[in-house]
Amino acid sequence: MDVKPLLSAIEAELQRQVARLDEPHTRPFHAMLTYHMGWTGERSGPEAQGKRVRPLLVLLTCAACNADLKSALPAAAAVELIHNFSLVHDDIQDNSDKRRGRKTVWKEWGMPLGINVGDALFVLSNLAVLDLSPAYPAETVVKAAAILHATCLDLTRGQYLDMSYETRTDLALEDYWPMIGGKTAALLAACCEVGALLGGAELATQEAYRDFGHYLGLAFQVQDDLLGIWGDSVLTGKSTESDLVAGKKSLPVLFGLGKDGVFARRWVEGPVRPEEVGPLADQLAKEGARLFTQETADRMTDLALQSLRMADPQGEAGEALFELAQNLLSRQA
Amino acid sequence: MDVKPLLSAIEAELQRQVARLDEPHTRPFHAMLTYHMGWTGERSGPEAQGKRVRPLLVLLTCAACNADLKSALPAAAAVELIHNFSLVHDDIQDNSDKRRGRKTVWKEWGMPLGINVGDALFVLSNLAVLDLSPAYPAETVVKAAAILHATCLDLTRGQYLDMSYETRTDLALEDYWPMIGGKTAALLAACCEVGALLGGAELATQEAYRDFGHYLGLAFQVQDDLLGIWGDSVLTGKSTESDLVAGKKSLPVLFGLGKDGVFARRWVEGPVRPEEVGPLADQLAKEGARLFTQETADRMTDLALQSLRMADPQGEAGEALFELAQNLLSRQA
Repeated sequence: MDVKPLLSAIEAELQRQVARLDEPHTRPFHAMLTYHMGWTGERSGPEAQGKRVRPLLVLLTCAACNADLKSALPAAAAVELIHNFSLVHDDIQDNSDKRRGRKTVWKEWGMPLGINVGDALFVLSNLAVLDLSPAYPAETVVKAAAILHATCLDLTRGQYLDMSYETRTDLALEDYWPMIGGKTAALLAACCEVGALLGGAELATQEAYRDFGHYLGLAFQVQDDLLGIWGDSVLTGKSTESDLVAGKKSLPVLFGLGKDGVFARRWVEGPVRPEEVGPLADQLAKEGARLFTQETADRMTDLALQSLRMADPQGEAGEALFELAQNLLSRQA
Repeated sequence: MDVKPLLSAIEAELQRQVARLDEPHTRPFHAMLTYHMGWTGERSGPEAQGKRVRPLLVLLTCAACNADLKSALPAAAAVELIHNFSLVHDDIQDNSDKRRGRKTVWKEWGMPLGINVGDALFVLSNLAVLDLSPAYPAETVVKAAAILHATCLDLTRGQYLDMSYETRTDLALEDYWPMIGGKTAALLAACCEVGALLGGAELATQEAYRDFGHYLGLAFQVQDDLLGIWGDSVLTGKSTESDLVAGKKSLPVLFGLGKDGVFARRWVEGPVRPEEVGPLADQLAKEGARLFTQETADRMTDLALQSLRMADPQGEAGEALFELAQNLLSRQA
């Protein structure tokens, strides 16, 4: 299935939703949002827009339930707006200067306006959901909103855990899951659940799609953690971008801390320098963290694909869902 | 009418809504929200909670439509959560250390967590609205959500204008209204409109209540601007808290800038020192700004009361609405 027409439709719907701020008084404010979305400003274009995986999941799931996906477009826009609201605030919270190779919003316009841009994206996601009326009955709109609002609460929980972990020294392996459950998996689960809801699927099928999104998110994050330490780009090139240098409490690091060996002793001593990245990654692998992380990623991937088979997605959209999962999970950098 | 039982019911409903974060993993996060709401921490209590004017407006309006106000409690909580989300982010954006005599959230826990607390309050307001089900039909829930989401977009617009005005030197009197329309009046208008909607009022009555809230908000803000320069507390006591020292582009200041006289020439020279506050306030009054601002506040007050009479509120709740408006608008400090 060619997803290009879907991507164009998603982009058009997103622009329509964000255009609510395109008024004489607030034009410069609107421009901050269109900059972040990758439509305007320096180096705008597909590279700056990201892959739009979340809205694609909504639409493909909806279509894989044998329903017309066009009416679901506002929900697709809503999940992408939620994602981008969280990115804009995340960049401020993490003090990040760059996002997809471009200056972050707060870096360009300052922290106060940056917070407001994130808030506006969040409000726009709320308004987008309501645009599901009148194509869907009010009960369905309320249900879609309930799924997405509960997900946003998970996002703030995950964000809290992520920030609180930075200063905690008593973390165990089991502290990993609530954090990435909120930060990564919750929104992907919601995308698939909302897509199935709007596709008219039965409750059990909605549940199966939700599980698919959940495990897809977990598998993706664990894979990301693996690449963040042993990926080609951080080992052969930009060692400054290694999760080890960033001090990220990722799955392999939590595993290594639990081993309480050479790696753990080095870790608690303080920040890792870029030139240590290679040997320390080797040491961590020697202690079993790489194998453990790979096996965890594989297990989550299996669970994702099992759930997807259980949901029994139909037609070309169904095939596209399997493909999208494979592409997401087979990244090497 | 004794509003104390209403205030207790509002507080209990707010605590119930915020308790969604009261879980083992996120208990310290929950504590940040309960601190901000004035329930826990240093000097918690009624003083720290604010007057809860917005939820009162929702409930009194609902009751003044001859409806039972109990089912409307989640909407009352929602508007107060929206208000508090905007306060938490506002305090970060304005670099404010104190709120109601206590340390602000970001000052206590840092800016990154402060942003997340505001985000969580916003999400909780979204979830609160959905708690109107099943007491109200889904169509009504969607309509209430639509009113509140549109209002939140107005809040971000008003916030943008407020921030952008700080650096603008070309502002005219007419730039004042879109800013305070978003920052102050929009949410008060929404409180009354939602209250009337949930009270089962006809569209024309919903509209009249909305106008009441809108003009009440404008009158309140203009009054606030007046007291910010000529109020007893800033003239006889804390001149450091004068809007003139803060450099706030309030209505009297915009009026004075338009006159292009002695006041305007002093204003453009740079920050006003506390010892200049008395003479400069006198000068601004001499140029007609005080009279103009008072007349504007009176005009907005008249429009608010006219709209309220048009809405024809019933019973004790109706009387309480008139009282609440009088109390809000007759402040002297």
